[in-house]
Amino acid sequence: MHTPWEHRFAHRTQRMGSSVIRELLKLTESPDIISFAGGLPAPDVFPVEDFAEACQRVLRDMGKYALQYGSTEGYTPLREMIARHTARYGISVTIDNIMITSGSQQALDLLGKIFINRGDRVLVESPTYLGALQAWNAYGAEYVAVPSDKDGMMTDALENALRTGPKFIYVLPNFQNPTGVTLPIERRHKLIELADRYGVPIVEDDPYGQLRYEGEHLPSVVALDGQYRDDQGACYSGNVIYLSTFSKTLAPGIRLAWVIAPPEVIRKMVQAKQGADLHTATFNQIVAYEVAHGGFLDRHIHLIRRVYKERRDVMLAALDSYFPPGTDWTQPQGGLFLWATTPEGMDTTPLLKVAIENKVAFVPGAPFYPCGGGGNTMRLNFSNATPDNIRIGMARLGKVLKEAIEKK
Amino acid sequence: MHTPWEHRFAHRTQRMGSSVIRELLKLTESPDIISFAGGLPAPDVFPVEDFAEACQRVLRDMGKYALQYGSTEGYTPLREMIARHTARYGISVTIDNIMITSGSQQALDLLGKIFINRGDRVLVESPTYLGALQAWNAYGAEYVAVPSDKDGMMTDALENALRTGPKFIYVLPNFQNPTGVTLPIERRHKLIELADRYGVPIVEDDPYGQLRYEGEHLPSVVALDGQYRDDQGACYSGNVIYLSTFSKTLAPGIRLAWVIAPPEVIRKMVQAKQGADLHTATFNQIVAYEVAHGGFLDRHIHLIRRVYKERRDVMLAALDSYFPPGTDWTQPQGGLFLWATTPEGMDTTPLLKVAIENKVAFVPGAPFYPCGGGGNTMRLNFSNATPDNIRIGMARLGKVLKEAIEKK
Repeated sequence: MHTPWEHRFAHRTQRMGSSVIRELLKLTESPDIISFAGGLPAPDVFPVEDFAEACQRVLRDMGKYALQYGSTEGYTPLREMIARHTARYGISVTIDNIMITSGSQQALDLLGKIFINRGDRVLVESPTYLGALQAWNAYGAEYVAVPSDKDGMMTDALENALRTGPKFIYVLPNFQNPTGVTLPIERRHKLIELADRYGVPIVEDDPYGQLRYEGEHLPSVVALDGQYRDDQGACYSGNVIYLSTFSKTLAPGIRLAWVIAPPEVIRKMVQAKQGADLHTATFNQIVAYEVAHGGFLDRHIHLIRRVYKERRDVMLAALDSYFPPGTDWTQPQGGLFLWATTPEGMDTTPLLKVAIENKVAFVPGAPFYPCGGGGNTMRLNFSNATPDNIRIGMARLGKVLKEAIEKK
Repeated sequence: MHTPWEHRFAHRTQRMGSSVIRELLKLTESPDIISFAGGLPAPDVFPVEDFAEACQRVLRDMGKYALQYGSTEGYTPLREMIARHTARYGISVTIDNIMITSGSQQALDLLGKIFINRGDRVLVESPTYLGALQAWNAYGAEYVAVPSDKDGMMTDALENALRTGPKFIYVLPNFQNPTGVTLPIERRHKLIELADRYGVPIVEDDPYGQLRYEGEHLPSVVALDGQYRDDQGACYSGNVIYLSTFSKTLAPGIRLAWVIAPPEVIRKMVQAKQGADLHTATFNQIVAYEVAHGGFLDRHIHLIRRVYKERRDVMLAALDSYFPPGTDWTQPQGGLFLWATTPEGMDTTPLLKVAIENKVAFVPGAPFYPCGGGGNTMRLNFSNATPDNIRIGMARLGKVLKEAIEKK
């Protein structure tokens, strides 16, 4: 069918292009494929009963309010709860620093909308979160990529990148998506010092911060930045915009996340969100608040950690058992992902087709590199499949890799 | 507090500017003010019990699925239900023509994202829906305004406007927001013919189509366009993108709407939505489907019509009683709004302050005019206040207007 629309698409749609995540999420729907491709939490840890109770309570006690339009900033008690949670991690903010978003993806989109003019540079880790690139491509962002190793962003390479005048630095310090690696405390300090020296602010994306399975909690960049600027360290400096989400601690299907930013940024984001979706579902915000407040999240996070730690350990053991010589992988201390590297010169994109024929799936690494490279890498999710399926799937994937390497 | 962000805002934020709707929605929160400013449905008609039952059923039977990530296109049974609903209104579409959005506001934003290059013209009615202007300003849209009268867009003036080469025509044919007026069948035909002659496609925004309180249902522009191109008239021509929502028939606090478009437009919108919020809350889509399918909406709409018809009638009677000579207003056959005009030269924006001092609120009309004008107009919502409060509030507003006119 020819319609008058197809010649009218905006230029920016050319860069929205290939929807890798989406096409891959579709694969995970086929029940005979063991998928390490998505970033899905384990449905076994969703607090279904708690949601059922909260829905009843909310609809009984405040149904008319919960089903009505709400404010663009978000439900005040939920923002107050987030402010208390943030204070525990060493940063004092008020609700004027907090906006609720429809998932962190929306926070990324709104940041693009309010900050990125066509051609503006954003400094990112390489590889970095694909969803951020998808969001910011639509606003014409260009990227300055700082390479990363098993300790995350290589801050030695940061100074050169900062000289290109990026609008901001985008970093995922904890159990990064896609690599699973964590930025050590020394690199966090270095990042903050250099960002300050070059006057470039930071966007810290922290969806997995609470999902640590070993080692000690590291202070977030936003907290360290507060200490850097103020000996007391309790004040929010405003230099770091911090994103986090309920998708990994409660459930992703309610689409709830938040952003912490200076009030003047929150005001602009509110204006942008008004035009984007008016507000995040009132009902979801109230139900999430009812589920989460009063210490539920602290208790629930222990269950999630136990389940995911086991799955991570099973995957790491399976990598040892099944992945052929010449491959290598990260050792994540938390989060949902690890990152595998195949021999130089291999291309994991055509390999995905072979893997799917063998009933296993992963995400090829190349799309996570904003400036090219990474063709021989892949992202593996360990949170969604059961331990048994992780063993079976990794055996399949190991076989696919072994044959591909032998053929080479 | 000075932060490094405030000098980094994108140029487009200058046009996002004044958040009129938002500031006004805030006013409605003060309990002693009778507000005709918002566009809020009556909470009395929210099917709270039905939601409570559906939430229990969904969480019991498919909780893990409902709380998980979902597809960007939307929940398939919900899209199938919308396809069946659309077929009843004379247009045959498949789920490949349908995407679920987080409210119609998101559909407007995504249309802006995929169609509007900076400087592109959009042909709109004047006045038109403020939310569309807010969404499209962010993408640098310019507007060609066609004036409207008590029968909506003046199609006699359409041809000149079409010669400016707009990217598309945006029209709200039924009980328009803000004016409440309805485009008669002859003007709908004229619109379709002229759009076809100039090769300009149409975006039809129809949030209130089912909320008719008198007169006969008029076929939607998308249905008439199908007939215009095909004697059978049952096929979706693809020339019209059609938006509608569950906000006015179920509840706005769940943020659920849909768009009907050619598959190539849906594909681009899906890519844009992936970057914007990944997908609309799975839980909300399934719960809405559970509430709405099986004929509930048809029954429920009768209740809504009865309640809103009474409130419209009370407001029209109050206008007759309380509004001073020199004022005029529309006679909406449906929807949520009517539109009042005060004497030439009056400015309703400073009048709002006086009205609020007198514990009543409205929306000044000027922001709804994309190319200026309308300073002496105002939008009045009749769905949210009770009949008694409508009488009291309109008496207050009539007094404010009378004094303002006398002072002049």
